Amino acid sequence: MKKTRLEAFSDGVLAIIITIMVLEIKVPHGEQFSDLKELIPVFLSYALSFIYIGIYWNNHHHMVSTVHQVTGGILWANLHLLFWLSLIPFATGWVGENHFGAAPMALYGVVLLMAGIAYYILQSLIIKNEGKDSLLAKAIGKDMKGKVSPFLYLAAIVVSWVNPVVSGIIYCIAAFIWLIPDKRIERSIRQSGRDVEE
Amino acid sequence: MKKTRLEAFSDGVLAIIITIMVLEIKVPHGEQFSDLKELIPVFLSYALSFIYIGIYWNNHHHMVSTVHQVTGGILWANLHLLFWLSLIPFATGWVGENHFGAAPMALYGVVLLMAGIAYYILQSLIIKNEGKDSLLAKAIGKDMKGKVSPFLYLAAIVVSWVNPVVSGIIYCIAAFIWLIPDKRIERSIRQSGRDVEE
Amino acid sequence: MKKTRLEAFSDGVLAIIITIMVLEIKVPHGEQFSDLKELIPVFLSYALSFIYIGIYWNNHHHMVSTVHQVTGGILWANLHLLFWLSLIPFATGWVGENHFGAAPMALYGVVLLMAGIAYYILQSLIIKNEGKDSLLAKAIGKDMKGKVSPFLYLAAIVVSWVNPVVSGIIYCIAAFIWLIPDKRIERSIRQSGRDVEE
Amino acid sequence: MKKTRLEAFSDGVLAIIITIMVLEIKVPHGEQFSDLKELIPVFLSYALSFIYIGIYWNNHHHMVSTVHQVTGGILWANLHLLFWLSLIPFATGWVGENHFGAAPMALYGVVLLMAGIAYYILQSLIIKNEGKDSLLAKAIGKDMKGKVSPFLYLAAIVVSWVNPVVSGIIYCIAAFIWLIPDKRIERSIRQSGRDVEE
Repeated sequence: MKKTRLEAFSDGVLAIIITIMVLEIKVPHGEQFSDLKELIPVFLSYALSFIYIGIYWNNHHHMVSTVHQVTGGILWANLHLLFWLSLIPFATGWVGENHFGAAPMALYGVVLLMAGIAYYILQSLIIKNEGKDSLLAKAIGKDMKGKVSPFLYLAAIVVSWVNPVVSGIIYCIAAFIWLIPDKRIERSIRQSGRDVEE
Repeated sequence: MKKTRLEAFSDGVLAIIITIMVLEIKVPHGEQFSDLKELIPVFLSYALSFIYIGIYWNNHHHMVSTVHQVTGGILWANLHLLFWLSLIPFATGWVGENHFGAAPMALYGVVLLMAGIAYYILQSLIIKNEGKDSLLAKAIGKDMKGKVSPFLYLAAIVVSWVNPVVSGIIYCIAAFIWLIPDKRIERSIRQSGRDVEE
Repeated sequence: MKKTRLEAFSDGVLAIIITIMVLEIKVPHGEQFSDLKELIPVFLSYALSFIYIGIYWNNHHHMVSTVHQVTGGILWANLHLLFWLSLIPFATGWVGENHFGAAPMALYGVVLLMAGIAYYILQSLIIKNEGKDSLLAKAIGKDMKGKVSPFLYLAAIVVSWVNPVVSGIIYCIAAFIWLIPDKRIERSIRQSGRDVEE
Repeated sequence: MKKTRLEAFSDGVLAIIITIMVLEIKVPHGEQFSDLKELIPVFLSYALSFIYIGIYWNNHHHMVSTVHQVTGGILWANLHLLFWLSLIPFATGWVGENHFGAAPMALYGVVLLMAGIAYYILQSLIIKNEGKDSLLAKAIGKDMKGKVSPFLYLAAIVVSWVNPVVSGIIYCIAAFIWLIPDKRIERSIRQSGRDVEE
């Protein structure tokens, strides 16, 4: 029952984060299509962030579905994750307003890195709570994605000072890796043959 | 169970989209009724977009109710649909601020067209997944509405360069066609005599 | 099942409406308590609108709990109600910015009146659908509140041109009347001895 | 069933409050990291308020889980709590914009104090309704946290006129006390051996 409300609250926050980002795309005063030109970086950063929040919602969804008991620690680790994700609209807005400047691109990476760490903490807490033989532990396995992404974010942060565009490409690659849904968990859930969701 | 969360997240995003549009109706500084005059186009475009989001919510609701299993593909096709719908407040704001200018009216149609395509992709994925004998496949049938609307949007986009007002009327007609709820699905659900919703 | 999603969507929209109103209370640049003085009308109109949305949520909650089947008509009557309620933040902002000017106070009444009519339409549709012997029909009874409020709103609209403060007092009185929860429905539900909520 | 909708609405409002606060962190026009310097107080006040809303969500969650019947009084006491919490983004924005000025810091305490009182009223109503032998009554016990916090807020309000930084430290301490989840309720729920959540 607790889990239901954890999901509902997280869904609410993620739905709002993904939607208020669009408020950063300020309506231009001119009425020509050329007036939209300056909005292209805003639009691109919006699209990328939309995908990132979508990825987090998707994975969060899979991960929480394996949880049997929500502890205080899990609640706060979840809020910690939502905190960093809530800063994505700000970082996105800064990136878009400054046409992929070095500092905004680096900050974007920092926020993604912190969100990645927060996700890892939440995942570890759930596994610790559910046991090493739990569905999630088996499903995650070596967790290659989770281990590779922080290094990609770090690389993008460093690179942003040399060439912010390359940094942007790295963020796109990191998103692409995650776009493939976590089939391992889906498969494990099916194999386990148990109704794990309540 | 997954479906529940897909619905909850979609409901959340659609509820936010439909509501933040009202933030584009900026409070006028004057305190006369005449100060509201310039807000009339903003109000009219708000009302039309409200109806469009309402239509999408309504149809989304009917469509998802026929789904038995949510796959990764369906999740992302759904997010893709929400992405285009999330741009409606921006397009609405641009239309309203520029009193139905040509470019804003055309952009409005582009966003509707992309949302329509995204809806079609989601629908096709669900039918592919559920089978050609599925409830949705039967209910959709020839899908006249879905096939006609893109052409209406395309027509409105082209016409907007000649006469934006005619373009606006076409958007109203396209909305009106959809306003009639998809009784085919409702009927099919009833006829099927099965509890399709969990 | 449909009902659940109708409630979820309405809850979402009402939660957003009640919360985004606070964005109209703009943070003052000064850092003295005296800088808050000019925000007093904004705060008062916010508080009144918060109560009104609370009343609508409360009554909507009771009313929908008696529904057995959601038709397309009910869906759209519900969206129609949400449309007018979504304009309350705008009307509230205008009232607050103009320190209870005549036109803003009248507009506030117009929005309340339209929302009241939309509520009445929704209620009538539900009763028509559920039958005259339905729980809601019995519970509503003579529906004194529903019949008195439109006249109060109309009176306030007219009075606003003479004395906007008196108009504000009428809105407070109309809210106060509704603040008393619809015990009739609660009682009827209990007496009916049936589990009306699914 | 009623409880579900009370939770859903509260979750929605809390999710929106926690997320729209981020809109107060205005995107800087410059593109240097140094441009973020002036945002540090905004960020810190955002983080503190995020934690406070998280605490309220967490405790609200535990408290409502013990409720068996939602009365009209509980509905309104809950809305009263949400009203004060909805003012936290405003108070946070004022604190952040004025770099921890005296008046903003005091107002922040006033809002926290009012929210604390509203929480106490809601809690008392639930206990009154559920009985002195109810789960919540036993779980709360002496309610040390609830009794200490108002005095901390009061102290912080007074101190803010002397030294706003000390006032800020007190708010952090008060948050820290609450950060520890209400294990008493969790334990009581487990001991009671009953499925209290429907």
